[in-house]
Amino acid sequence: MSNIENTIDRIQELLLDVETEQQLREELNSFHEADIADIFQLLKPEERLACFLKLDEEKAADVIEYLPPQLQVEILGDIDETLASRLISKLPHDEAADVLGDMEDDDTETYLDKLPEKFSSEIRELLTYNEDTAGGIMNPLVLTVAHSMTVKDALDTIRIKAEKDSMELYYVYVIDKHEHLLGVVSLRTLLTTPVDMLIADIMTRDIVKVQVDDYQGHIADIFMKYQFNALPVVDLYNHLKGIVTWDDVQDIVEEETTDEILTSSGIVTDLGDDEDEDILTGSLRNSIKSRIPWLFITLLGEFVAVSVTNKYDHTFTALPVIAAFMPLLAGLGGNIGTQSITLMVRGMSTGQVTLGSGWKYIWRETLTGVSIGLIFGVLVALVTWGWQHHVQLGLIVGLAMALNMTIATMIGTCTPLILKKMKIDPAVASGPVIATTIDVVGLAVYLTLVTWYLISA
Amino acid sequence: MSNIENTIDRIQELLLDVETEQQLREELNSFHEADIADIFQLLKPEERLACFLKLDEEKAADVIEYLPPQLQVEILGDIDETLASRLISKLPHDEAADVLGDMEDDDTETYLDKLPEKFSSEIRELLTYNEDTAGGIMNPLVLTVAHSMTVKDALDTIRIKAEKDSMELYYVYVIDKHEHLLGVVSLRTLLTTPVDMLIADIMTRDIVKVQVDDYQGHIADIFMKYQFNALPVVDLYNHLKGIVTWDDVQDIVEEETTDEILTSSGIVTDLGDDEDEDILTGSLRNSIKSRIPWLFITLLGEFVAVSVTNKYDHTFTALPVIAAFMPLLAGLGGNIGTQSITLMVRGMSTGQVTLGSGWKYIWRETLTGVSIGLIFGVLVALVTWGWQHHVQLGLIVGLAMALNMTIATMIGTCTPLILKKMKIDPAVASGPVIATTIDVVGLAVYLTLVTWYLISA
Repeated sequence: MSNIENTIDRIQELLLDVETEQQLREELNSFHEADIADIFQLLKPEERLACFLKLDEEKAADVIEYLPPQLQVEILGDIDETLASRLISKLPHDEAADVLGDMEDDDTETYLDKLPEKFSSEIRELLTYNEDTAGGIMNPLVLTVAHSMTVKDALDTIRIKAEKDSMELYYVYVIDKHEHLLGVVSLRTLLTTPVDMLIADIMTRDIVKVQVDDYQGHIADIFMKYQFNALPVVDLYNHLKGIVTWDDVQDIVEEETTDEILTSSGIVTDLGDDEDEDILTGSLRNSIKSRIPWLFITLLGEFVAVSVTNKYDHTFTALPVIAAFMPLLAGLGGNIGTQSITLMVRGMSTGQVTLGSGWKYIWRETLTGVSIGLIFGVLVALVTWGWQHHVQLGLIVGLAMALNMTIATMIGTCTPLILKKMKIDPAVASGPVIATTIDVVGLAVYLTLVTWYLISA
Repeated sequence: MSNIENTIDRIQELLLDVETEQQLREELNSFHEADIADIFQLLKPEERLACFLKLDEEKAADVIEYLPPQLQVEILGDIDETLASRLISKLPHDEAADVLGDMEDDDTETYLDKLPEKFSSEIRELLTYNEDTAGGIMNPLVLTVAHSMTVKDALDTIRIKAEKDSMELYYVYVIDKHEHLLGVVSLRTLLTTPVDMLIADIMTRDIVKVQVDDYQGHIADIFMKYQFNALPVVDLYNHLKGIVTWDDVQDIVEEETTDEILTSSGIVTDLGDDEDEDILTGSLRNSIKSRIPWLFITLLGEFVAVSVTNKYDHTFTALPVIAAFMPLLAGLGGNIGTQSITLMVRGMSTGQVTLGSGWKYIWRETLTGVSIGLIFGVLVALVTWGWQHHVQLGLIVGLAMALNMTIATMIGTCTPLILKKMKIDPAVASGPVIATTIDVVGLAVYLTLVTWYLISA
């Protein structure tokens, strides 16, 4: 599928003509499920439904897995209930629970009642966990063997169990008869060990595991740190409840990155409601609620800027051109300050910048700020002089620019470190607060310089 | 390891006393290699070296794998050359090539000469690939079987090959006698298929693969889309050259996210030099070079703001308090605009916002902007009125605020979409350019309102 837009055009063409129905059916089913999911996202709802109904049932279930939540719910709601239940029962347990969890409560019940008894009771258990915890993302089907088995017994068990259920197959977990987790054996070890050895003798006992109620951010951190493919999930009594795999973590990491990015631009991503709505597609009320808090804090900060500036009204009367340069200073100060904040906050979140190594970066950034401040200061002084034919104004604006950019860099670099030291998430408070602080300090420096000049002149 | 700071304190204490050396050795070796790597990042260089030399050789090699590049090079440079070569030869091929690639060219040669013949020639081949391509991140050791084998033959082959080499074991790749890639069999299939079946009959022929010179961003996209654990890497003639695994991709995704975040705050991450330096730790010259381009463009934009504002100098003389409210308007406009840009750019990079669905978000964001603009407009009007005892000033500032926030939201939402339509990366140009545009438009609206009032008064 080299060009998705051509494919879309072709599908829309085939949809228009009943005679090409069979051809469309064949072409659609020949695509990889991930490709079909991509195509579906670009089709109109009625085209999407028509195409979905042309997929073979196995393929249709696979496609569901790759669709974003809102499309999963849309499509399953549009098709026949019996077909929908059949498709849901073909999904891996964790996916089925996610899909059902995203529906209205009544619909969830309707489908659960139509599903096979065993499957639906397993899904009901999964639905009791908070969706942001290990329990909410794990797959409860785990390949387990007893510690008393030999390697040959274990291989035979795998042959039977893994064929029957659609289990993820990375490691084999070793349990006792009460389902307590005792150890783990990699498939690699199983395949390269003499078949008569005991599992108890080859398993790793010192295993990294997570609790069912551990939050997903914590789980992602463990995956990143130890670079596992899968982690076992246990309850308080060390009973094996499921596994979390790297592709679940992929989604978490993307979610957490989005949160980090949105938070640092002053958007509140956790509204504390039960419903965890997407800010771009959720209700307008939530969208407004997520954006007002930091705007309001900016408002308070900028009123400080207004009252500082207001003290200099005699200056504006005496030399009105002074006011015209305020946006220039604030704009560049804000810009270079934002660069510094971004570098520091990102450095902290990848682990490159730590409290211990922080002073090194403060020094580096200050040097950068001074250098760039000098370059821009000289540039601005020359332009202002040439434009306004006013040497002193050029000098004042240039000096203010140099100081402003240096101070902005320092504030942008130090504040995230100070917040971290105070155990406040640097991403949360950094952006808006620092921008406002830079505004206030920059204006105060500039207007003080102007006043000195006017007094001495 | 519940608390890393306590652990560090304890290690530093044990390091001070020669009598506790054996105890330190035992404790260090009992930690997981990922934990040791975390600890090392917080120790001083001389403490780090002392601790590293107390690790068993296997453990030491494992720790090297988890360290960031600069520490890998630092430690290997500090220890005895023979020990360093021995440790390098214990690393997986792709890691060894990365480590050697990060060293000075002379050092790379010294170590390559000391490594076992076969290993060093394989590493030399890996070093010929660009480090941002599949060739630069792949592991050349792949578990392969012939298509003419039975499942039993294949399992026997795995038993011998996988034990000998430290191969990643996710899938088994099927090749012909000229090493052309024919298909892939998952371990799961191998383990659940009757042992006398032919590999040729059970392998998947329609495989997703990447080329040795494919760029890493493309590879990460494929992993995210299809959710594989590993992908085969082939050359132009379909010879199997290696595999890329999900943990390699993890690092790429983190790198790409950092680029996206830094770029959107106006930092140029690709300086076009041969050396791909880290902006926080690289040379001061590169740090300045990466930050000046967008600051310069901001400078040009803000000079437009200055010349717009400068047209209203009679206004500042007549009503100097007008100047004091400029930072308030610019600050809040910039802030809400940044929120919109961030939402759109992030939405595009996760694939949620497409050109097709863009109009939906423009409408949503405009509604949000109007709502928040009205709330803040009324608030600011009331505060200004109460503070300055000037009803008309309150009304002007309030109205300017409402218009400014609405316009800023619209500019912040539309510009990334327009850039994308023009096939320009929205992350690159968005931040600084939009902030400046919002400044200019916001000031123009405000000062026009003020002038109308002054004329009519």
